[in-house]
Amino acid sequence: MNASHTHITHTLLLLLLSILIGISVSIIDTIFGKILLLISDFRVEHFIYLIPFLAFVGAIFTYIYQRYGSSATKGMTLVFETTDKKTNETSIPLRMIPFSIVGTWLTHLFGGSAGREGVAVQLGATISNHLGNIFHLDNDRKTFIVIGIAAGFAGLFETPIAATFFATEVLIVGKLYYKAIPFALVAAFSASTMSSYLGLEKFSFVLQDQVPFSLMLIVKLIAIGILFGLVGAVFAKLLQLSKTFFAKHFPNPIIRIIIGGICISIASILLYSGRYSGLGTNLINDSFLGHTIYDYDWIIKIGLTVITIGVGFLGGEVTPLFAIGASFGVVLSSIFQLPFTFVAALGYASVFGSATRTFLAPSFIGTEVFGFSYLPYFLLVCTVAYLVNQKYTIYSAQKYHAS
Amino acid sequence: MNASHTHITHTLLLLLLSILIGISVSIIDTIFGKILLLISDFRVEHFIYLIPFLAFVGAIFTYIYQRYGSSATKGMTLVFETTDKKTNETSIPLRMIPFSIVGTWLTHLFGGSAGREGVAVQLGATISNHLGNIFHLDNDRKTFIVIGIAAGFAGLFETPIAATFFATEVLIVGKLYYKAIPFALVAAFSASTMSSYLGLEKFSFVLQDQVPFSLMLIVKLIAIGILFGLVGAVFAKLLQLSKTFFAKHFPNPIIRIIIGGICISIASILLYSGRYSGLGTNLINDSFLGHTIYDYDWIIKIGLTVITIGVGFLGGEVTPLFAIGASFGVVLSSIFQLPFTFVAALGYASVFGSATRTFLAPSFIGTEVFGFSYLPYFLLVCTVAYLVNQKYTIYSAQKYHAS
Repeated sequence: MNASHTHITHTLLLLLLSILIGISVSIIDTIFGKILLLISDFRVEHFIYLIPFLAFVGAIFTYIYQRYGSSATKGMTLVFETTDKKTNETSIPLRMIPFSIVGTWLTHLFGGSAGREGVAVQLGATISNHLGNIFHLDNDRKTFIVIGIAAGFAGLFETPIAATFFATEVLIVGKLYYKAIPFALVAAFSASTMSSYLGLEKFSFVLQDQVPFSLMLIVKLIAIGILFGLVGAVFAKLLQLSKTFFAKHFPNPIIRIIIGGICISIASILLYSGRYSGLGTNLINDSFLGHTIYDYDWIIKIGLTVITIGVGFLGGEVTPLFAIGASFGVVLSSIFQLPFTFVAALGYASVFGSATRTFLAPSFIGTEVFGFSYLPYFLLVCTVAYLVNQKYTIYSAQKYHAS
Repeated sequence: MNASHTHITHTLLLLLLSILIGISVSIIDTIFGKILLLISDFRVEHFIYLIPFLAFVGAIFTYIYQRYGSSATKGMTLVFETTDKKTNETSIPLRMIPFSIVGTWLTHLFGGSAGREGVAVQLGATISNHLGNIFHLDNDRKTFIVIGIAAGFAGLFETPIAATFFATEVLIVGKLYYKAIPFALVAAFSASTMSSYLGLEKFSFVLQDQVPFSLMLIVKLIAIGILFGLVGAVFAKLLQLSKTFFAKHFPNPIIRIIIGGICISIASILLYSGRYSGLGTNLINDSFLGHTIYDYDWIIKIGLTVITIGVGFLGGEVTPLFAIGASFGVVLSSIFQLPFTFVAALGYASVFGSATRTFLAPSFIGTEVFGFSYLPYFLLVCTVAYLVNQKYTIYSAQKYHAS
């Protein structure tokens, strides 16, 4: 009776803290996200005056980051390591929050090709980790990191179910941290509701495509899932190669980011003046609105993103992965004779899933962004994409569950 | 390279077998299910001529079952044990299929209060287990059982996503058998598609309720989730008590089922002539169509179901749990001033979830039966119901994950 009593008190405490984490993380997410959108708009308008400074700004930021960032410079790797008892990491320094926010703003202001979820996930994990430590809940360290990831992701994208599955399935490939789902759900819904209340814009597009069920459709979707899975794997592999290549040839991180920044600046100007800078939301919008998508958009976006992240700019990979998937989906739609918005939506979800070695998270991203009735299609394509990519992930500290 | 090659071949073999299992299980599911519905209709029309024979038929069936059923008489317990390496059970006898089918038909023809998913899950697990053994895939025994459960459940209810989560989360409380999800999904979608193609009727009801989001709604839903969780716990606890009470006082299973059968016959005649016999689909329909639901319907349905199953009649508990949840939901709706179809739907899903110690499965049952846009509400209520019931389950062989 006493054990059961303690259990209930503990569960209630975790639920209350989950709400608190969801709300506080979403407030920072909203401020970060709104300013990021303003910055992105500003860059689009003044692109040619900003892009030349990318390398310079990167160098200054890196200098300060290396000098004062302490373990925060490990980024997502530190978040993953804090969940692992075999490492000695038990706490994420609070400075990770301002560093990741400012670093990401700078990346986007000066035209790097990157995401934004890195910040959200890291600030969520940091706040949650600190709250757990304040309450001396050492045994729940992993649970708190998961709650924080869910809150950060949900507060930014306003897709609480996807955020819950992402947080619980991303740490170890082949294993779901099921026990934490109830708390992650509470944190994610709190964060998502709060961000929406605070007016953070959510990307969503209601699919209207009628896709009649047939055996042929299933065969096509499996083929499409394989292709999206391969693109996700290629992205993850190229990101690894980019990191090792630049680290090997330019061991000094400041020199590295200067060389990389110059390459990105030149390429970004030559390639349609900034079409591939920033999050890639322009490519996403063009994909769904039927505007021009070039057959090679997704290839260039992959190239610039793996260089941007590979040389040390902050941000993340998720929104570029959405853009890569959606624009590649448009290309595939004409080959497979399916509605372009339908295939773009499948790519949006499944390329992200393959590159992060998850399949429930992208399936629910798909349904939360494009409509719940398409869940079976998202599940099929994301599962195939997940099964195809047995090896490559964008998270170098992600572990694999022995089967 | 070779290991990765073997891995892909193995994955493909499992996927192909999953499709095969899905299709073959759904064919038997459909035959079983269609005849069961005919039998149920026949009983409703001729109730008074059939109900007196319940004890007699139960006794004869039990005599044959005990004599020739071998380990199949363990029912769901055998299915659970076959997944556990610590037991010596490695194979489910094929005779479980005809025994569970005929036994369940007899229960329903003569007016017992029971479900039907026991048959579906057991025949799915049996077929899948045999296929795995034929291919000597001993290391995948648990995966095959999970695939079979998913196929059986999906083939019967045509809710493939719920079936996948049910199969992967029911074996061990607090743990999801995540690795098997892709295969379970394939089996479940194959089974569900095939059953639908073969014309097995699916219960679904499109909710039209507008429930404006507010803090008050959240508070109400948490309270409702707690109450549904308690009802599920009470059902599971009473089922355990019923089993131990009858086993203690009537150690002979034939005497036991005769005594139980007579009690059920008398009670069923006195209580509105058969209102509480069978699956309880009449209560479900009445709940959603706004017909009369008595405040005590759910209590009597609990009582008759735990006696029917407790004394040894075959069938299952799931559809009665749906009925108990829906009819209790109607009662709660007037107390909480919410649309009755909305609360009935929440009860339909979450009471089943609490009694089986699952929360993803019932959340998706809810969305697959009542509409995807209600997923957040189902997740909230089912998660609360799951957290409330820390102890009681209808599956005596279900294990608990050490936390």
